[in-house]
Amino acid sequence: MPLIAAATGGTPTRRPVWFMRQAGRSLPEYRAIRADHGMLESCFDSSMVCEITMQPVRRHDVDAAILFSDIVVPLKAAGVDLDIVAGTGPVIAHPVRTADDVAHLPVLDPQSVGAIARAIGLILDELDDETALIGFAGAPFTLASYLIEGGPSRNYTITKSMMYSDPELWHALMGRLADITITFLRTQLDAGVDAIQLFDSWAGALSDADYRTFVAPHSARVLAEVSDFGVPRIHFGVGTGELLESMTKVGADVIGVDWRVPLDDAARRVGGRVAVQGNLDPTVLFAGDTAVDQHVRRIVAEGERAVVHGAAGHIFNLGHGVLPGTDPDVITRTVELVHSI
Amino acid sequence: MPLIAAATGGTPTRRPVWFMRQAGRSLPEYRAIRADHGMLESCFDSSMVCEITMQPVRRHDVDAAILFSDIVVPLKAAGVDLDIVAGTGPVIAHPVRTADDVAHLPVLDPQSVGAIARAIGLILDELDDETALIGFAGAPFTLASYLIEGGPSRNYTITKSMMYSDPELWHALMGRLADITITFLRTQLDAGVDAIQLFDSWAGALSDADYRTFVAPHSARVLAEVSDFGVPRIHFGVGTGELLESMTKVGADVIGVDWRVPLDDAARRVGGRVAVQGNLDPTVLFAGDTAVDQHVRRIVAEGERAVVHGAAGHIFNLGHGVLPGTDPDVITRTVELVHSI
Repeated sequence: MPLIAAATGGTPTRRPVWFMRQAGRSLPEYRAIRADHGMLESCFDSSMVCEITMQPVRRHDVDAAILFSDIVVPLKAAGVDLDIVAGTGPVIAHPVRTADDVAHLPVLDPQSVGAIARAIGLILDELDDETALIGFAGAPFTLASYLIEGGPSRNYTITKSMMYSDPELWHALMGRLADITITFLRTQLDAGVDAIQLFDSWAGALSDADYRTFVAPHSARVLAEVSDFGVPRIHFGVGTGELLESMTKVGADVIGVDWRVPLDDAARRVGGRVAVQGNLDPTVLFAGDTAVDQHVRRIVAEGERAVVHGAAGHIFNLGHGVLPGTDPDVITRTVELVHSI
Repeated sequence: MPLIAAATGGTPTRRPVWFMRQAGRSLPEYRAIRADHGMLESCFDSSMVCEITMQPVRRHDVDAAILFSDIVVPLKAAGVDLDIVAGTGPVIAHPVRTADDVAHLPVLDPQSVGAIARAIGLILDELDDETALIGFAGAPFTLASYLIEGGPSRNYTITKSMMYSDPELWHALMGRLADITITFLRTQLDAGVDAIQLFDSWAGALSDADYRTFVAPHSARVLAEVSDFGVPRIHFGVGTGELLESMTKVGADVIGVDWRVPLDDAARRVGGRVAVQGNLDPTVLFAGDTAVDQHVRRIVAEGERAVVHGAAGHIFNLGHGVLPGTDPDVITRTVELVHSI
């Protein structure tokens, strides 16, 4: 598989490319399915997860399928009262803010994500041998931010306030979330995913010192406790220029890089031991073929320089997820272009 | 004035401190004024601008007043149809997206910001000799993002799409916005402000390469065209770790740094020629006195190391603006603490 080769220092048969959020709102076939089904319903229905995961693979000829899911899926499965509201995102009925709240957080029983394990079986039956299936989980910090704030946040005020004012409570919460994430990822790995991506989407809100003190130990435990499967572990966040080295040191095999840091620069920052993934600005897909061509070629060149600097490989991707209004034909042409260079 | 001394390599009589958004929603006396007056109405009423600007100076004993205004004030004054909607922010009636839109952008007549010039006169009458008055303006990129998107944005999709797809149109728009910003700042400088701060709040959404190509020439022109006044020019943005050197090179005397980059590290990145301003995470003010004490002392130490590395000085501030729910007494105590160290 080209993606696995690039992630592990091998020689891929073609330049691997996939797009974060390739399954989702940019595709009319996805919107057609979702017209009659809520987000959480879709995430817990094996055949819908399979179908939605496969849609972009069929359409775009990408080198990986990313399991269709949501960061809060394992929390919901564990029994946290939450919903995903269109136009808002996750809404937590009772935000977690006290020692009592943390003590009452449920544990994730692997059986409660059985539908996701079954979906992975269905997807693997459909995927060809060259296309990797990437498992999906949110990292403890990003999960904590949703649980504490009660939903998406701009400033993470309550989250950081807990972190700074009550480190003991903070670490207790992060430990429980790490447990949930480990169970969710091991379930996916048992079901046969070829790689996993740990999404610490909002870690970029932190300084490196705070990341190392309050987040790294828990993300490190998550990545360590799935290492026995021997599959590549991709670690991703947005606005993480200051954190790339720390986010690699916690145990990543592939480090996701957003568009703010050139890939060759990223490879230098992390010491060149891992593969780099990224990093086209998702807005470039709105700017026409000439701009796409120019930026894709620049990123491919920077990825090649990253490998010269010692990176294990380069997996082409966006710097963040596909934006909702993106023309899917542009995505298809971008994949073709990456494969053609 | 301690702030001016720190900005220019002098020896301040005490450690200067002010807080971005110190005038505003954190203060009950501000909310009392605003209960009966809209945001734009407040920004164009000389006595209200003076009163709101002075409120935090009286309460907190800070070393600078920041002119109470909003980034879109000069656009409104020039005749752009816009409003500031509570809970949303600026809303532009007709977003600027075509060559025709750009061609019809109005020019700012200094007389249309006469109320702001008069407010500055009133403020200078009230301020003592040790407290600096800082003028306020948005930088062309941040202004462009509001005009193009039609309001606040999460991804700047339309803004960046114009930048990537039609550089000529982009530069034409940025040139007109630079003109407006220059006129607005020169009006404030003519009225006697002691320093200016150019807010490129959202520049951190860009890579350094894009910043240098699409933004730097215009911000450089703004800063050059106010240099004859010989007052310190502070340049600020959020999430600008990758841009600090470029944002300094455009002509800043003081570089604002958010909480993601330690001040001594920032001083190294920008080559130590300028002063550094920052960089307490605004969420720390919610975390109790112990956390505030710890973070303030760390930042003071990093600021001192920045000066050792060649920075002209350190102005204590937040890494971004005061958050709305901040307890004003915590701000007062934080100022006392900074002055006591």
